[in-house]
Amino acid sequence: MSANETLSIFALGGINEIGKNMYVLQYADDIFIIDCGGKFPDESLLGIDLIIPDIRYLAENREKIRALIVTHGHEDHIGGVPYLLRELNVPIYATNFTLGLIELKLDEHRLRAETKLHPIDSDTELEFGEVKLSFFKVSHSIPDCLGIVFETPEGKVVHTGDFKFDLTPANDQAADIHKMAQIGSDSVLMLISESTNAERTGLTPSEQMVGGHMEEAFMKAEGKIFVSTFASNVNRVQQVVQAAIKTNRRLLLLGRSMVNVVNVAIERGYLHVPEGMLIDPRTADRLAPEKVAILCTGSQGEPMAALARLASGNYRDISIYPGDTVILAASPIPGNERDVSRIIDNLFLLGAKVIYGSGSTTGMHVSGHGYQEDLKLMLTLMKPKYFIPIHGEYRMLHHHRLLAESVGVEKGRTFIIKNGDVVDIEKGIARQTRTVPSGVTYVDGMGVGDVGDVVLRDRKQLSEDGMLVVVVTISKSERKIISGPDTISRGFVYARDSEDLFTEVNRLVKKRVDELQEANISQWNVMKQNIRKTVGQYLFSQTKKRPMILPVIIEI
Amino acid sequence: MSANETLSIFALGGINEIGKNMYVLQYADDIFIIDCGGKFPDESLLGIDLIIPDIRYLAENREKIRALIVTHGHEDHIGGVPYLLRELNVPIYATNFTLGLIELKLDEHRLRAETKLHPIDSDTELEFGEVKLSFFKVSHSIPDCLGIVFETPEGKVVHTGDFKFDLTPANDQAADIHKMAQIGSDSVLMLISESTNAERTGLTPSEQMVGGHMEEAFMKAEGKIFVSTFASNVNRVQQVVQAAIKTNRRLLLLGRSMVNVVNVAIERGYLHVPEGMLIDPRTADRLAPEKVAILCTGSQGEPMAALARLASGNYRDISIYPGDTVILAASPIPGNERDVSRIIDNLFLLGAKVIYGSGSTTGMHVSGHGYQEDLKLMLTLMKPKYFIPIHGEYRMLHHHRLLAESVGVEKGRTFIIKNGDVVDIEKGIARQTRTVPSGVTYVDGMGVGDVGDVVLRDRKQLSEDGMLVVVVTISKSERKIISGPDTISRGFVYARDSEDLFTEVNRLVKKRVDELQEANISQWNVMKQNIRKTVGQYLFSQTKKRPMILPVIIEI
Repeated sequence: MSANETLSIFALGGINEIGKNMYVLQYADDIFIIDCGGKFPDESLLGIDLIIPDIRYLAENREKIRALIVTHGHEDHIGGVPYLLRELNVPIYATNFTLGLIELKLDEHRLRAETKLHPIDSDTELEFGEVKLSFFKVSHSIPDCLGIVFETPEGKVVHTGDFKFDLTPANDQAADIHKMAQIGSDSVLMLISESTNAERTGLTPSEQMVGGHMEEAFMKAEGKIFVSTFASNVNRVQQVVQAAIKTNRRLLLLGRSMVNVVNVAIERGYLHVPEGMLIDPRTADRLAPEKVAILCTGSQGEPMAALARLASGNYRDISIYPGDTVILAASPIPGNERDVSRIIDNLFLLGAKVIYGSGSTTGMHVSGHGYQEDLKLMLTLMKPKYFIPIHGEYRMLHHHRLLAESVGVEKGRTFIIKNGDVVDIEKGIARQTRTVPSGVTYVDGMGVGDVGDVVLRDRKQLSEDGMLVVVVTISKSERKIISGPDTISRGFVYARDSEDLFTEVNRLVKKRVDELQEANISQWNVMKQNIRKTVGQYLFSQTKKRPMILPVIIEI
Repeated sequence: MSANETLSIFALGGINEIGKNMYVLQYADDIFIIDCGGKFPDESLLGIDLIIPDIRYLAENREKIRALIVTHGHEDHIGGVPYLLRELNVPIYATNFTLGLIELKLDEHRLRAETKLHPIDSDTELEFGEVKLSFFKVSHSIPDCLGIVFETPEGKVVHTGDFKFDLTPANDQAADIHKMAQIGSDSVLMLISESTNAERTGLTPSEQMVGGHMEEAFMKAEGKIFVSTFASNVNRVQQVVQAAIKTNRRLLLLGRSMVNVVNVAIERGYLHVPEGMLIDPRTADRLAPEKVAILCTGSQGEPMAALARLASGNYRDISIYPGDTVILAASPIPGNERDVSRIIDNLFLLGAKVIYGSGSTTGMHVSGHGYQEDLKLMLTLMKPKYFIPIHGEYRMLHHHRLLAESVGVEKGRTFIIKNGDVVDIEKGIARQTRTVPSGVTYVDGMGVGDVGDVVLRDRKQLSEDGMLVVVVTISKSERKIISGPDTISRGFVYARDSEDLFTEVNRLVKKRVDELQEANISQWNVMKQNIRKTVGQYLFSQTKKRPMILPVIIEI
């Protein structure tokens, strides 16, 4: 980027996807990173554990980076932090609760000591060169969320973070709606706003609605009550705590992230649990069922999380019995429906009463992301000259643009960008003409970036039809096969039932190798290619499968 | 099964799942098969093309099988037919339209000539020994659907097939509601009824609702109109035809199954398309956009179907331009949401107007399966003594039982069975005490049953972390390595960036093999086990990945 006085805005993740949010604002030689999220792979990315943004641009401009500002503590905003820090020692600015969750990650990756963590709140003001930062509180499904205001010589840029408008939040953290109005009344150059629910009409229901339904379910329940929800939704957890208090139940936490996050929330003052209310599994097992409530992870059907193991009767220390109540206080994220359904089936098989389904049916879940009226309210408050919808798949960004235009953003002033597209603003005029490097980095085990398209393509072939190793040993001096061909297959067909098939493969390979030897052709590449083709054609004709064929030729 | 006079009912597929429906009714030595469906694998069944029921029981009792009766032509009721016929030459009884779809399959599998096909309709009466069969029309999302009545010496058994009650169907095929009432007023011993929508309150909306919305959308559209729906939903296709006629559009069919099924429907008189209305892609391309409507496959996001290829601009002959309208007249089946969303994003990117979302929002889709009130109406009409809910996952069967009890089926008289569980009825008393063999058979390429759990487990390991072949050649006489160790990996890590890793693997293998040779240990199994362990531990410590390790030892 040139050293002139351009204001540039782009995304390294979060556009045309839900996940791995990472946005960058650069003014001249000062770079600010907003969020650093991870994304969970879909089933096509075989064996991949996590996807994080490609940070080449940041690595190449490391001396210009002033701060990573994290708007809130959800995985799609903090999941990439440890991987970023391995490459770049960036100071992190975030609220108290968000920092608590980031610190859990840093501890896991043994990165805490060397990282500079700066707590901020909505009153914090920061200054880096010519850029001033201030903040405003927003409501979302996790405590302590911020929007960011960047004051630059070009004008004011507002980043909303993830938000909804909740006029009766389930805690004392109301959004700074007056501050937002004030920001908006003083000329906003650019609004950058999230788009998750831009397809949904109306206003997001309030979190307090869940509390009422939760209490009602607790009143009716006869046996134990299990509630599964996101651990980070501390306000919902608080409402479960309140319902348990009212019905004289003590509370057991199940699942590592539930225990960790609840502890952070209690320590830092975001969650209030009466002394002695929390119990361990053994105590829970001893108490009368109607005295026990259980908060557990696994609402998305994750097969190793507490709820899935409870549903299949595989949880040590605690079991679900007929008459117990299980509440799924979360909606399945698209792609997780099948896993969640399987758990619900298992819960019914155990004889549990199961409260499940969409939040609007059960009242046990509300979204943390603003619907169309929320988004319009934000746009109306901010009155931006330019608008970039972020945090959404293309159709959501598209709808968000229509919403912006419906409340007065001029046509042609909304930029629907892709990850890597740069919006440059000079002398009040915004243009999108250039790009920076962007993409995905796969985390697989300990490796970051050691797995890419070639490896994934191989995994895909292996996963569909398995593989076949054909080993032949050839005597260099005698120019003939002295051992083999031998065949080993995995993931292809039952070897025991297919002896004839493999016998024929070996015969064909022997024949082909003999022919090549006679024709004086002994380059490995040519021999291997010939074996691959001969065996491949034969197997496809017999089985309609295309296993990966690995010829191994040993010359002695 | 004994040669006594027991009436037995069981499922070989369709219970605790949606898919591969296959039910069996046996009276003494007469076996009747109801439906023979396939099921599409979820992503955990790597490489599998289709799942069909395990038919061991039928093969062992082949001489007793009297008929396969197919209630309707959906894949989950006919998809297994060719595979059943390969094993057992069973006469098939089905309606005209259902036979049309079955014949398409038989042609593909070259099984038509040897198969006995018997057309039936709701007036048909059949007699096999002491069992009489009669039929009644039901409404569903495909034409020509039947319910079945088996009159046996033990009493009357009714199988509903898939159904809803649609009092204003979009054709002249009204359900035989009077006949159902008559059947029910004459003492039904057992009702076997489908459960797909047992969780949904109310009555299924009528198919005619879609027609109204379709016509409205056609009126408003300016460019071309694309409608994607299931080809087999002939009534919906008819409504698209009507809307196209009203708005002076000619009709192009895209997608192999759309063309095939529409042809069957036209030939057999289930679909009425004016002469000259159907056009080919070139004509469609030449006509003014407002003169063209396109019916295409791919509403479930199938990546190779017409809609996905249109959305990514990869369809020969025809393209989507800004201003065109695309209607998704189907709801995504759970598990397909992500693929469908990707297509919608691409359609918006092309500038299309997209009508998508749940049927209740857009009015472009209604379910073919009865909701709770439909199911209660069937139960009320039939007044069965015993009840078996089928065609559903466990929670659906569970809800269906509650519905049955709410309309008067006595507690304890509903049997929630599993595939293979047999309900035996003797002297009017039903009991579930025994099972027959049941399970899944995987179709993979040309192989039926040649892939099972071991192969799938290997594919899973290969898909997650790839594999590594380690080749060592040992001289028998000299007791030492004469070639290798050499390492080949696929789907593991980028080999080029990991030379050091593989060098160390080879060093470790050499060391281990030398040690074993010195210790005089040369059994292959032991050597291989040692190599696997040494390499596995090293790779896991370095990469946290567990590739499949295949040691190949050649002795010369």
